[in-house]
Amino acid sequence: MIKLVLNGCSGKMGKVITECATKFKNLEIVAGIDKFPSQTSYPIYENTQDLDIDYDVLLDFSRAEALPALISLTEKTKKPLVICSTGFSSNDLALIDEKSKSLPLFRSANMSLGINLINSLLRKVTPLLYGNYDIEIIEKHHNQKVDAPSGTAVLLADTIKDSIEEETKFVYGRSGSSKREQNEIGIHAIRGGSIVGDHDVIFAGTGEIIELSHKAISREVFAIGALKACEYMGNISNPGLYNMDDVIGITK
Amino acid sequence: MIKLVLNGCSGKMGKVITECATKFKNLEIVAGIDKFPSQTSYPIYENTQDLDIDYDVLLDFSRAEALPALISLTEKTKKPLVICSTGFSSNDLALIDEKSKSLPLFRSANMSLGINLINSLLRKVTPLLYGNYDIEIIEKHHNQKVDAPSGTAVLLADTIKDSIEEETKFVYGRSGSSKREQNEIGIHAIRGGSIVGDHDVIFAGTGEIIELSHKAISREVFAIGALKACEYMGNISNPGLYNMDDVIGITK
Amino acid sequence: MIKLVLNGCSGKMGKVITECATKFKNLEIVAGIDKFPSQTSYPIYENTQDLDIDYDVLLDFSRAEALPALISLTEKTKKPLVICSTGFSSNDLALIDEKSKSLPLFRSANMSLGINLINSLLRKVTPLLYGNYDIEIIEKHHNQKVDAPSGTAVLLADTIKDSIEEETKFVYGRSGSSKREQNEIGIHAIRGGSIVGDHDVIFAGTGEIIELSHKAISREVFAIGALKACEYMGNISNPGLYNMDDVIGITK
Amino acid sequence: MIKLVLNGCSGKMGKVITECATKFKNLEIVAGIDKFPSQTSYPIYENTQDLDIDYDVLLDFSRAEALPALISLTEKTKKPLVICSTGFSSNDLALIDEKSKSLPLFRSANMSLGINLINSLLRKVTPLLYGNYDIEIIEKHHNQKVDAPSGTAVLLADTIKDSIEEETKFVYGRSGSSKREQNEIGIHAIRGGSIVGDHDVIFAGTGEIIELSHKAISREVFAIGALKACEYMGNISNPGLYNMDDVIGITK
Repeated sequence: MIKLVLNGCSGKMGKVITECATKFKNLEIVAGIDKFPSQTSYPIYENTQDLDIDYDVLLDFSRAEALPALISLTEKTKKPLVICSTGFSSNDLALIDEKSKSLPLFRSANMSLGINLINSLLRKVTPLLYGNYDIEIIEKHHNQKVDAPSGTAVLLADTIKDSIEEETKFVYGRSGSSKREQNEIGIHAIRGGSIVGDHDVIFAGTGEIIELSHKAISREVFAIGALKACEYMGNISNPGLYNMDDVIGITK
Repeated sequence: MIKLVLNGCSGKMGKVITECATKFKNLEIVAGIDKFPSQTSYPIYENTQDLDIDYDVLLDFSRAEALPALISLTEKTKKPLVICSTGFSSNDLALIDEKSKSLPLFRSANMSLGINLINSLLRKVTPLLYGNYDIEIIEKHHNQKVDAPSGTAVLLADTIKDSIEEETKFVYGRSGSSKREQNEIGIHAIRGGSIVGDHDVIFAGTGEIIELSHKAISREVFAIGALKACEYMGNISNPGLYNMDDVIGITK
Repeated sequence: MIKLVLNGCSGKMGKVITECATKFKNLEIVAGIDKFPSQTSYPIYENTQDLDIDYDVLLDFSRAEALPALISLTEKTKKPLVICSTGFSSNDLALIDEKSKSLPLFRSANMSLGINLINSLLRKVTPLLYGNYDIEIIEKHHNQKVDAPSGTAVLLADTIKDSIEEETKFVYGRSGSSKREQNEIGIHAIRGGSIVGDHDVIFAGTGEIIELSHKAISREVFAIGALKACEYMGNISNPGLYNMDDVIGITK
Repeated sequence: MIKLVLNGCSGKMGKVITECATKFKNLEIVAGIDKFPSQTSYPIYENTQDLDIDYDVLLDFSRAEALPALISLTEKTKKPLVICSTGFSSNDLALIDEKSKSLPLFRSANMSLGINLINSLLRKVTPLLYGNYDIEIIEKHHNQKVDAPSGTAVLLADTIKDSIEEETKFVYGRSGSSKREQNEIGIHAIRGGSIVGDHDVIFAGTGEIIELSHKAISREVFAIGALKACEYMGNISNPGLYNMDDVIGITK
């Protein structure tokens, strides 16, 4: 049984994780950390300093600002830290990199197993297809989303770009007279209703289309990814910066 | 048996129509008109003046420039004229309108039955859904297409716009910080490989998505639409400007 | 402001409706009815007899067994009753029919606006397309669903069947040597993961495919449909059996 | 420049290959073999014995019966043989296996690059996802197709089955009371109109869906795959049984 401490346990994702964790037989949340109280079966500490309980993995689904305190706690306990917060500055990312030399850290820009799997497939597939197949990404999200394209679409597009030797350019829509050039990667942001999050990567060739698609159905998908990462990190003691590719077991 | 004369019989679409016509038991092509020869089972006349044969419907799948000669012939014979060419000027369209007061004319911007059906459904559905559902159009075509969005996407978008009282605006892609406004109609042009032509109209609401989609598989679809129009016009003797809604039998 | 009483307010759907109702400015839940208590802003009565409060519409999202008590209450108040429960026997349905002669009753087999809209489009579209287009239905649901095909797929398939003069037959999958016959309507039940509920109706013709699709994203969609029905019924005083077609405003 | 001899040059696929070959700058068809004549820019020999011309690769897109003659010719010339015919008996396949010890032979059950790519991705992805994701295949073909499911769907399903340790079972549709079991692999054959050939492999998990899809647009796709195989084999002199995985460059 792997004992988890959940930082951000009273937030939206904290609650989803608390619920999903009951389905993982080898995981148990033994404590939460949050300024705000919530109804849980485990004790909640107001901050990391107060934590006086034994644990195996520290899971963070809060805010970028929590990073220094989490690193401090991890330096004390040497236990794996699974970072699922987003919005880190380049300084934050450099700190994570640096500390991963002495601590077992996990970080992923997107906690969905499916998105990470598709991302790793793109690394293999793109170099084989580029030149004979045109690449376009369609992403769909709810009408309250402010940024376009989605962070995940950018992640996938960057992976594609990095897999191609030739210089490619992103095109965010088309109108007017605009015949496609081979090195374009089209990225299309559809917004509407309460769509949770769809991403289609299209490879359109002569006479055939290959598509890799992902549809998020609910926030649960990120909770499950985070808990899978905790399962994985529960067995890790070596320092290093781990990510979803390690959890999935796909090699770069 | 309805006797057809096919103007533009040696062109790409002319050949497809000639082939498809063999599947219509009540239609027979009795003559073609074309400057260029081609191997056909029917005689080919070089121009409309030379035509000295009896016919029931004159089918045109050539170029806008042919219009005056076709109208002249129709004024002589009083037989229905099915116009499938595109690229007409506003003067051309005004001429068609004017002549339809005394002659049985048919014209449609898109000869696919499916597109016309979806277009007529949009007229019904849009006023019921707008306000609670966000509307977005995705169209996909091959990488040699020059214009974006496709003429068909524009046709569908205009129908949607005309069905909404509020002033709406077309958005041809999204990037940067751009939260969707209710009166946006997103139009997204995907280009790649040899895609024949897909059009999806998405109504995304709270908790559900309704989609009306059309996929063209081959050019045959336009030939079949043209021949269906000929079947319909073969029974028409009253002057008027007829279109695909009449052929399909859906009332506005 | 339309005053609602919500029967089944402590059930799963009752809670979703309570939450969604806050978004409808012209609706207010003034009381609930349920054997079980729950945290609500309105008083909860244990059964219909106890209810001593004035209301405009009685909304039921509970169980078929509640029908007689709900009819009794409605006979006393003469206020519209919106029935969203399912699983009614033919006797129950006959009772609803009979009582609708003297009371304003609403019932729909599926509370999603989208599904009802698509269903009413099928009534128009099927007679125009059958014969030249092959009709197939694909539905997708989560892996815990017991029945196949889904009730909604059956609803859509029955509408299609009723719109065709020729005798058609349902085919629930294909294997072996099985060339399609024209009067087949294929119905395919995909089961997997936590899919909420997708329904695609495909009309596949020569050279083109027309598709009408619906995707449910969350249970909210049924709550919104139920509340829209309450809005509509709030303005109804004439007896009759009303349904979603009336709410949507599409005529048969 | 790689010099091709095309066996079956007057057949449907032979003509498509002849046309597509003009787009491959490093390939030239120097001769065809066929009992029937056709209009080509290269000479046609009636049978393999008559062939008295120098070539680099022998491409076969004819019938299984041609195999012995093709093998004989290849034993004489030692040049690579690309076999794209289908319908081989187990004896034929054993012969190909045996002869590949001394001759450079290529054979693939499906000549589309895309299908072969997806097939090789399934080998990697299935073991990672099975257990947490339910696997279903949807294939769509025209209404004249006799067998169901398609040979390609069977190819994909077999790859999935072989990638899973647990015993799985194929399910070809669902009706009645039939809750999904984990080890089911659903295979659904949609038939309609003139659909060329779609294959979707769905991995449906908790909160997310991953999909790998392929759409064939035209027969060209098989010609291009065959010609790519010829390009690849043009550089091969070692005996062996090569296939599309080698051409694509994906390792098992």
